[in-house]
Amino acid sequence: MKSSERGARAHQMFLGHQDRIVDALQALDPSHPFREDSWDREGGGGGRSRVLEGGDILEKAGVNVSCVFGELSEAFAAQLPGTGRSFMATGVSLVLHPRNPHAPTVHANFRYLEKGEDAAWFGGGGDLTPWILYEEDARHFHDVWRQACGRHAVADHTAFKAACDRYFHIPHRGEARGIGGIFFDYMGLEPPKGISADLAEAERFVDDAAGCFLGAYLPVLEKRKDASFTEEERDWQLVRRSRYVEFNLVYDRGTVFGLKTGGRTESILMSLPNEVRWRYDMSPRPDSYQSRLVEVLREPVDWLDR
Amino acid sequence: MKSSERGARAHQMFLGHQDRIVDALQALDPSHPFREDSWDREGGGGGRSRVLEGGDILEKAGVNVSCVFGELSEAFAAQLPGTGRSFMATGVSLVLHPRNPHAPTVHANFRYLEKGEDAAWFGGGGDLTPWILYEEDARHFHDVWRQACGRHAVADHTAFKAACDRYFHIPHRGEARGIGGIFFDYMGLEPPKGISADLAEAERFVDDAAGCFLGAYLPVLEKRKDASFTEEERDWQLVRRSRYVEFNLVYDRGTVFGLKTGGRTESILMSLPNEVRWRYDMSPRPDSYQSRLVEVLREPVDWLDR
Repeated sequence: MKSSERGARAHQMFLGHQDRIVDALQALDPSHPFREDSWDREGGGGGRSRVLEGGDILEKAGVNVSCVFGELSEAFAAQLPGTGRSFMATGVSLVLHPRNPHAPTVHANFRYLEKGEDAAWFGGGGDLTPWILYEEDARHFHDVWRQACGRHAVADHTAFKAACDRYFHIPHRGEARGIGGIFFDYMGLEPPKGISADLAEAERFVDDAAGCFLGAYLPVLEKRKDASFTEEERDWQLVRRSRYVEFNLVYDRGTVFGLKTGGRTESILMSLPNEVRWRYDMSPRPDSYQSRLVEVLREPVDWLDR
Repeated sequence: MKSSERGARAHQMFLGHQDRIVDALQALDPSHPFREDSWDREGGGGGRSRVLEGGDILEKAGVNVSCVFGELSEAFAAQLPGTGRSFMATGVSLVLHPRNPHAPTVHANFRYLEKGEDAAWFGGGGDLTPWILYEEDARHFHDVWRQACGRHAVADHTAFKAACDRYFHIPHRGEARGIGGIFFDYMGLEPPKGISADLAEAERFVDDAAGCFLGAYLPVLEKRKDASFTEEERDWQLVRRSRYVEFNLVYDRGTVFGLKTGGRTESILMSLPNEVRWRYDMSPRPDSYQSRLVEVLREPVDWLDR
């Protein structure tokens, strides 16, 4: 399988979102240029990574598009829908780590997969990881996704919000990575035949959702990027970032799968913050901004109905 | 299974090594006291963690003893020798992260396990992770382990050195975590009956090897701890530490198993450095101390015959 018509179109769609998102981020933070790396994958396909490090506003920002194809291992193929081992996958994936501890880190990913001749689906989502909680930011972020879901019959916001809370959970910490967003997978797949009529609707939803990312995040970043902050707040951000790393390296399916199957390491680990601290047995003071954050990470919150 | 006579004796032996090692480290770096935490495990047993953070010489040091027992999950029990699901495990585990980039990070672990009525074994090892390579330090470290192995018929230094190189490999980086040492497992186990005559010899070897740790590492630390260093060298250390984190969170069996089965998170992650940097696609300048380090991490080196 090289690329179906829909696969090629999805790849172009994701490249377009990458261009648009990177342009907006670069306009916001012109201090350093995004660096672009195009790379080839040995088994087939490749990608285009764009990374900014050390910016005034964006301490680290990575926006990746990849389009890969080939043969899956027997073991991995068995875990996915569809017959056979041939596959193609394309997607856009981004993580932004602002410098200011009042501004949250954000992640989003939208992808399209085909396996064998009979299975194809979309997946993706976006989630927010604040260090200092502003409920209005959480509400805004969730509201944009709810509106996007509301425009498409294939998108069930309640289910996607719950799936996001389930996915970004760090069991060994008893906490979520952040305050959630949406997460969905296997959209447009109708077993056992696979390619369903909904696939076209799924494509429209994913295009719309990827197009909503900037609206979900930029207003929050713009509001927080110039806030004054203390050394203690900065330290809290760096220490909390360690949990972001823990989630990504221990639990994140894309990261672990990518690393263990020969993906491009630098593009996969682009998601990790550039500056991180681990501290032994840290517990936040009661009634502090630190404990207020930890509290909302322990149990999922319905931000739009709070 | 609560604890056999040998299990109780091994636990006491490991507590003794913890005392001795912590005393020596505290004497070397009296700037901050080691903090002690005793903890209980829900399923049975517990541990005694000793941690120093922010010391003048030891930026972070953790020396843990645990002794746990109970029932393994069906799936995990099937992966280990011995019948049934009951187990006990005790061990001492330590990681030291000196502040000075000329001084290497070090890890050591010695443990004893029993499973069911018919299997018991020792395991462990020690390995060194320099940031700036001093070949004489590498030779000294390896030489101490070779001498320890030479004193015991159960210990095959060549095999243990090779096992260490295999274990501390980071496939997604194509590099070893450090310059090795020794690694051994299932020592004293003679399938299918399990408890072999060698177990007593294994116990003597492990006691001797744990007793050698300070001799293997302290002379190196003492030689490097006061070396003057540049900002660039410090940065290199912090960036390279990210690979230490990657190994521990993605591949280390003890870490991943511990986190996923409800071990005490703070004691498990005590191994992670307190200050870490990730940098996108960093390649060291040719003919630099950075590239010399990376070179010896790409292919195992026979340090004692170089």
